[in-house]
Amino acid sequence: MLAARSRLALRLGAVVPRVSRFGSAAVRVGKFNLPSLPVTTFVTRHGYATDAQDKVVPYTADKLTYIKRDPNFNQITDEHVTYLKSILSPGSLIVGESDSDNDLLPYNTDWMNKYRGKGRLVVRPRTTEEVSKVLAYCNEQRLAVVPQGGNTGLVGGGVPVFDEIVLSTNLLNKVRKFDPVSGSLVCDAGCILESLENYLGDRGHIMPLDLGAKGSCHIGGNVATNAGGLRLLRYGSLHGSVLGLEVVLPDGTVLENLSTLRKDNTGYDLKQLFIGSEGTLGIITGVSILTPKKPNAVNVALVGLKSFEHVQQAFLGARENLSEILSAFECWDKSASRLVQSHTLQSMKNPLEEEHPFYVLLETSGSNKEHDDEKLNSYLEKLMEDGIIDDGVIAQDATQILNLWSLRESIPEACSKSGAVYKYDISMPLPVFYKMVEDVRARLSEAGVVGEDKMVTDVIGYGHVGDGNLHLNVTAKKYDAEVTKLIEPYVYEWAAKYNGSISAEHGLGLMKAPYIGYSKSKPMVEMMKRIKTVFDPNGIMNPYKFLPQ
Amino acid sequence: MLAARSRLALRLGAVVPRVSRFGSAAVRVGKFNLPSLPVTTFVTRHGYATDAQDKVVPYTADKLTYIKRDPNFNQITDEHVTYLKSILSPGSLIVGESDSDNDLLPYNTDWMNKYRGKGRLVVRPRTTEEVSKVLAYCNEQRLAVVPQGGNTGLVGGGVPVFDEIVLSTNLLNKVRKFDPVSGSLVCDAGCILESLENYLGDRGHIMPLDLGAKGSCHIGGNVATNAGGLRLLRYGSLHGSVLGLEVVLPDGTVLENLSTLRKDNTGYDLKQLFIGSEGTLGIITGVSILTPKKPNAVNVALVGLKSFEHVQQAFLGARENLSEILSAFECWDKSASRLVQSHTLQSMKNPLEEEHPFYVLLETSGSNKEHDDEKLNSYLEKLMEDGIIDDGVIAQDATQILNLWSLRESIPEACSKSGAVYKYDISMPLPVFYKMVEDVRARLSEAGVVGEDKMVTDVIGYGHVGDGNLHLNVTAKKYDAEVTKLIEPYVYEWAAKYNGSISAEHGLGLMKAPYIGYSKSKPMVEMMKRIKTVFDPNGIMNPYKFLPQ
Repeated sequence: MLAARSRLALRLGAVVPRVSRFGSAAVRVGKFNLPSLPVTTFVTRHGYATDAQDKVVPYTADKLTYIKRDPNFNQITDEHVTYLKSILSPGSLIVGESDSDNDLLPYNTDWMNKYRGKGRLVVRPRTTEEVSKVLAYCNEQRLAVVPQGGNTGLVGGGVPVFDEIVLSTNLLNKVRKFDPVSGSLVCDAGCILESLENYLGDRGHIMPLDLGAKGSCHIGGNVATNAGGLRLLRYGSLHGSVLGLEVVLPDGTVLENLSTLRKDNTGYDLKQLFIGSEGTLGIITGVSILTPKKPNAVNVALVGLKSFEHVQQAFLGARENLSEILSAFECWDKSASRLVQSHTLQSMKNPLEEEHPFYVLLETSGSNKEHDDEKLNSYLEKLMEDGIIDDGVIAQDATQILNLWSLRESIPEACSKSGAVYKYDISMPLPVFYKMVEDVRARLSEAGVVGEDKMVTDVIGYGHVGDGNLHLNVTAKKYDAEVTKLIEPYVYEWAAKYNGSISAEHGLGLMKAPYIGYSKSKPMVEMMKRIKTVFDPNGIMNPYKFLPQ
Repeated sequence: MLAARSRLALRLGAVVPRVSRFGSAAVRVGKFNLPSLPVTTFVTRHGYATDAQDKVVPYTADKLTYIKRDPNFNQITDEHVTYLKSILSPGSLIVGESDSDNDLLPYNTDWMNKYRGKGRLVVRPRTTEEVSKVLAYCNEQRLAVVPQGGNTGLVGGGVPVFDEIVLSTNLLNKVRKFDPVSGSLVCDAGCILESLENYLGDRGHIMPLDLGAKGSCHIGGNVATNAGGLRLLRYGSLHGSVLGLEVVLPDGTVLENLSTLRKDNTGYDLKQLFIGSEGTLGIITGVSILTPKKPNAVNVALVGLKSFEHVQQAFLGARENLSEILSAFECWDKSASRLVQSHTLQSMKNPLEEEHPFYVLLETSGSNKEHDDEKLNSYLEKLMEDGIIDDGVIAQDATQILNLWSLRESIPEACSKSGAVYKYDISMPLPVFYKMVEDVRARLSEAGVVGEDKMVTDVIGYGHVGDGNLHLNVTAKKYDAEVTKLIEPYVYEWAAKYNGSISAEHGLGLMKAPYIGYSKSKPMVEMMKRIKTVFDPNGIMNPYKFLPQ
């Protein structure tokens, strides 16, 4: 029966001949009934800024009235514009009559359509030297600056609040060098992550990070926000894989440290401070990064499970049995799955026949296909035998791999289709990973705000189980102050109570700056402020964000 | 014939039946003729401070006369001692009549017998609170402090120069907690690396770092010096695996950030500054670190090669074919091998029949023994076929694994037996990895200082090929100013010329502080000094070291 359905399916307790289990060669050759989606579908991974920006977003300054414009900053004058024009290549400035000019709007508004600044000037330098000149001038003239990469941030860190100048890395987009022996890649900060992945793909390497926004986000922004993403489980964080940085400080000083060495113990590792500093210390203009060899063999499986308990057991088994080849272990709940089914551009059918309370996508990457298949099959077979998973499919080719991944990667976009989405990004110990979703769901239900005719349409949980990193999304018809109050600071208090972090990978930006105290002690925040002052004594870099005022 | 010799041996061009190649089951079951060394031999990995300290070492202050005692620091008085005694548990102070007192000498002298300070007081706190009280008092009284872990450093960073107080982490030695689900270990800074390895071994995990000094070095010292070692190739640097730190600042402030989370993007990652800061910013009292699962299968092979060209080819092949299971790729030259043969406690025979210009020890660690064996055998067989390696053995059991490793790990001790050893620790691009040894050898030979009846007895190269990290050791009858002048700054200039680092993993300490400019630009060093001032405005922490005066 299974063979006739041309897929790998396992149902616990069903009358399934043993041969049809995962790992049986007879079944593995069978085809796979995922719809073969056209490539355009995967544009949803990247281009998610388009329709969100059709809406008019209220000004951040009107919503968050506790933030006041710093009177130490000067307003931009024609003289400033004239001077900046004189030091930059032609076409590097975008100046608007109003912040709502079509050319300026994409730089003033974040992807989530939640934050909108009043910037009137966008500067797009083409070289590190130009960045240096711009910053030195802005520092001298006390003009505030917001560094912006691909503008795919989720915490309002990359757009102005008032009239800050947007310094975009759009035109800093060259690969400087790649060494296939060491795997070190040196490139401009404005290179798009996916372009780098493609560049490396042709050379037998991959980037050590991957994330949904890869088609738009810049490597400089990734580093500045210490982006995590889908490969962290395997290749570790950017604190480990970034080999060197070139950074321009507010006074125009260029810290040139584009080392390609794997080891260098000569002095404080200054680059580490910039990784995750969200543009508050200086502007990253160049990145040197260690890139892994492209794996010869990649397998992706999707399984359905009854409870988060079962997800945990499956993860522990994966760590034990897939160990060095495990490269992703992503989980989402039934609500997330339903949203994806109903909201994505093309209908994306659940490749598992039944609906399950939880789904796990797991990926292996290794050097020997046969060995990896054997490890994966015996692992999955064991999970079935032990009743840990209820159903599952394994992708049979590269297209099916993309299709399975798209089920996971479409979740953020599907969430955003509801109208508004409250996004939280918490890391915590694995045993309480999903409890936050249950607790928030219960809290909102009790408050009577959840339902088809209510403000909140759903409460969704998904994320990187392997990193203890949950994304809690609350979908709503629109952003609403009452709903916000029900969720915040509740989720931050919750994270603190369970020794979690209020921001696993999204950063602090504007959204979480006031809440840093839930994750960091007063002495820690005090030291951060002192470090900020060392690098940026006039406070021109990305003001109002990151650290509490 | 090979089977009769009970070992795996492959000689290119010899009439060897194909079945006897690596990978043949018939050969692999054969025994292995390495002498089965008693476990005590491996004490050489750890206890290497003993006989070196029998010698009288000149005072650092008498040798490096350009370093002057900072007059801002007070001398220690009886009143200071009385106060410190009053705030600490009994038995926490060691006070000497003279710095040469037997109790003080081990704290005043480094392992290499190269540096000797004039400290009269050693403080050994038992709790973080005690460390805080001590530092706050020293800061207020302007008493300089040298943090000291296991005192296994190689650049004179852990011993006093003048009369600095030694703050030893010897008595901060408790494991605080271990979570087998996440693999996070939280412990005191004074825990000995090997004790932690043993603790974890019983719980199915390993430390993400391993180094020759593991029997003496403290995890706090490892973090403070950003120790690299033998597992970096696989598990990355401490910048990636340290999850959190507890640090006491000079003013007594405790920065408590012992997070066990894999991801936490809330503010500047301050812990990164302390990783590799060599005790100049504060004292690490607690460490939270991510520990990998203990691999189910470990293989170790030793191969002989004709040239460093062949070593490079073997490494590239290993990255391609062993990929995710490769956990070490160590290389040493004929000179290193000869020293080990002649100088180690028990005779350690070369398990390869002939002498080879180069040796590589490679290790695989994985979850499936059968798969790993197959990968390793087919890789080695290919290397033989291609004439890249000339001979090789694979360890057949845990004892043989230790024996092969001891050939590599005995090199530093064997070098030190000559009398004096000039140690350099350079990282550089792989193609020039061994060229430095050749160049230094030629330079010293031309100067006529090498030979049995000369000052320099040998020039030796070994190191971590996988990390581009060479250890150049020049063995000599004693330390000699003329020889030093021939080597320094020559090696640092050499490293700078080839875009290398003058300190890959040993740090700067006293030895390399003046040379940081070869690896870091002036603006970088300037920013480091400003950061130092933020944390330690009175400069009491480990003075005269790390940054140039």
